[in-house]
Amino acid sequence: MTLTVDFRTQARTLVEAGRDLHARGWVPATSGNFSARVDDRHVAVTVSGLDKGRLTEDDIMLVDMNGEAVSPGKRPSAETLLHAVLYRRHADVQIVLHTHSVAATVLSRSLHGALKLENYELLKAFPGVDTHETRVSIPVFPNDQNMKRLSSLVDRHLSEHSGVPAYLIAGHGLYTWARDARQARIQVEALEFMFECELARKRSGL
Amino acid sequence: MTLTVDFRTQARTLVEAGRDLHARGWVPATSGNFSARVDDRHVAVTVSGLDKGRLTEDDIMLVDMNGEAVSPGKRPSAETLLHAVLYRRHADVQIVLHTHSVAATVLSRSLHGALKLENYELLKAFPGVDTHETRVSIPVFPNDQNMKRLSSLVDRHLSEHSGVPAYLIAGHGLYTWARDARQARIQVEALEFMFECELARKRSGL
Amino acid sequence: MTLTVDFRTQARTLVEAGRDLHARGWVPATSGNFSARVDDRHVAVTVSGLDKGRLTEDDIMLVDMNGEAVSPGKRPSAETLLHAVLYRRHADVQIVLHTHSVAATVLSRSLHGALKLENYELLKAFPGVDTHETRVSIPVFPNDQNMKRLSSLVDRHLSEHSGVPAYLIAGHGLYTWARDARQARIQVEALEFMFECELARKRSGL
Amino acid sequence: MTLTVDFRTQARTLVEAGRDLHARGWVPATSGNFSARVDDRHVAVTVSGLDKGRLTEDDIMLVDMNGEAVSPGKRPSAETLLHAVLYRRHADVQIVLHTHSVAATVLSRSLHGALKLENYELLKAFPGVDTHETRVSIPVFPNDQNMKRLSSLVDRHLSEHSGVPAYLIAGHGLYTWARDARQARIQVEALEFMFECELARKRSGL
Repeated sequence: MTLTVDFRTQARTLVEAGRDLHARGWVPATSGNFSARVDDRHVAVTVSGLDKGRLTEDDIMLVDMNGEAVSPGKRPSAETLLHAVLYRRHADVQIVLHTHSVAATVLSRSLHGALKLENYELLKAFPGVDTHETRVSIPVFPNDQNMKRLSSLVDRHLSEHSGVPAYLIAGHGLYTWARDARQARIQVEALEFMFECELARKRSGL
Repeated sequence: MTLTVDFRTQARTLVEAGRDLHARGWVPATSGNFSARVDDRHVAVTVSGLDKGRLTEDDIMLVDMNGEAVSPGKRPSAETLLHAVLYRRHADVQIVLHTHSVAATVLSRSLHGALKLENYELLKAFPGVDTHETRVSIPVFPNDQNMKRLSSLVDRHLSEHSGVPAYLIAGHGLYTWARDARQARIQVEALEFMFECELARKRSGL
Repeated sequence: MTLTVDFRTQARTLVEAGRDLHARGWVPATSGNFSARVDDRHVAVTVSGLDKGRLTEDDIMLVDMNGEAVSPGKRPSAETLLHAVLYRRHADVQIVLHTHSVAATVLSRSLHGALKLENYELLKAFPGVDTHETRVSIPVFPNDQNMKRLSSLVDRHLSEHSGVPAYLIAGHGLYTWARDARQARIQVEALEFMFECELARKRSGL
Repeated sequence: MTLTVDFRTQARTLVEAGRDLHARGWVPATSGNFSARVDDRHVAVTVSGLDKGRLTEDDIMLVDMNGEAVSPGKRPSAETLLHAVLYRRHADVQIVLHTHSVAATVLSRSLHGALKLENYELLKAFPGVDTHETRVSIPVFPNDQNMKRLSSLVDRHLSEHSGVPAYLIAGHGLYTWARDARQARIQVEALEFMFECELARKRSGL
């Protein structure tokens, strides 16, 4: 299979996202993974186990909608199935970003079910939200190394709840998705900001 | 209407302010907005909804003193009216900066009425303050998506209290204004510093 | 008076120190001031009221050992007398750095008399300290806008206590001094590190 | 003795590690030290007492497996013996990094025996760990200026416990080691991340 122009464009987008998100401290060590839709049946995704701050286009590979490798000789991120589930479910999703910050890790370990965000002006960063007077619920799933089981759990939750813009895995971090890279980056910034606020509130008793 | 040299100078000032304030983490996602006076009847202001760290001069537009768009085909920040109120009230105000930090968000959500700052050497960053032995009161207004109502509330407060250098909107952030861009940036740095101190004091019980 | 080669060398050192210390967040707004000895009777010092991250050599001026301006048409930092006292008392002091961090501000406001630092490996950053099994006492003075009174208080304390490497002014920040710029920068880094540790310990109850 | 090509390669690796780790705030002042194996009997190590953010290749020297200087006229880091012990014990260790962060300092001062890390996805950054459902124990040793005594204590612990990837010295920081520089940097990032999480959890009661 010949890699398309789209693949290279998406690969560059993911390399740039990695550099930026690592500089913010949100994908330490080899944590985090990113993907972008290439066509109806293929997704560009980060290769397993790399430092996301120093990716090159060669560290991005092609997988199908079952998360199986198409690029020869490369192994995709262990969590590729979590990405595939989102592309299958949402035809308009073009990019999925998974970050792994201190605030997301600490908060998600202590929460059961969901993180409820309300009264933040930045809730307006999500599509369709135009006021702080709302509540956005970010589901929290228990961490699991079995990706079939975890991706089924996520998929079932999303089939039962519409309009979910992101989820957390306990002790593991954030997944968010959007129609384009710009909107995905805005959602990561908005969510990490609100996670830091929530943690600061717990620390200070405010 | 032809955009004047002044407009371009002010636009460059706002682009630079955005890049710097985003790098500090004070305008995450699409939060924050900035403006600068162009002449007696016009203000340059950021276009609605953009990442403030990546503005170009094309992302700055002209509005009148009612906050209505003059530049064709562009939509000003939803909060433009809050800027206009300050220019109408204070003839010597040349720039207004609105930031949205973690410390300002968390503190402002927990406060009613005002944040009292005292015994900080950095209070001397405000015009007319030459000692730490003073108290500067930063009013805190409840967040409101109705800009007419919110701007009227701010305007009434400012008409009844002279010498207010800044205000907070709960869960939303800081507004401050000054005679020139340098002084406005100094006020943002001084205020964000004192917000971090106040939050650290609450966290540590000091 | 002609400014000497030494003056220009010292001015460059202070400009560079300002850029670095501002980038660390330790001299926000117009806080902080720096000086370096030029000869037995003169000191290069920062001009009053500037952003220390954007100094040029033109923002450094010459004062005498009473803190009085020698450079025409410029006003030295309000706290120049605090610098002069250190050069008069210690013939081997070549540089004085005053920083203004969140941790130093919050800690110093809550302390009376002194901050006791012990069991930190980084205490070895101070001249003559070769073990963590020691206690370094950093005096804390109440803030005062009367520089004659404050500098006399500091001078009297230093005459009665030998080997003091630094002091704090409550709500205002750190003064430290050394034989050369490299050692002064090391002391600032070591002290700000230990202030952050002390604040983190208070926050976490450790 | 002629310094080999390997020495220069390793020296460049340590210079780069210093610049990066200092920028992260993990080797403040003159803290931290780094080494890399050159051959069976020699190790490249940082010279004593320098700012690790500004190293040049000239600041890296050769020592033998007893930690004794081979490079003439230079003094190795006081803690070189701690490095030598690791190279003698583990034939596959190529690099040792010692960092000195706020989180490591504060946590290690309050711990006796070991820091237990569990339920972190990032535990998978350690060789041989493929699930968060494990517990990695990071031993904590009391600080000691007597390097013979401290290195013997460490060596005895490592002889009795296999698979230890890192240790802490109380109030002093982290030692970690790996087969190559990339893996060592990943371990530092993963550990410092988990230290920050542990500290945040203690601060917030989560």
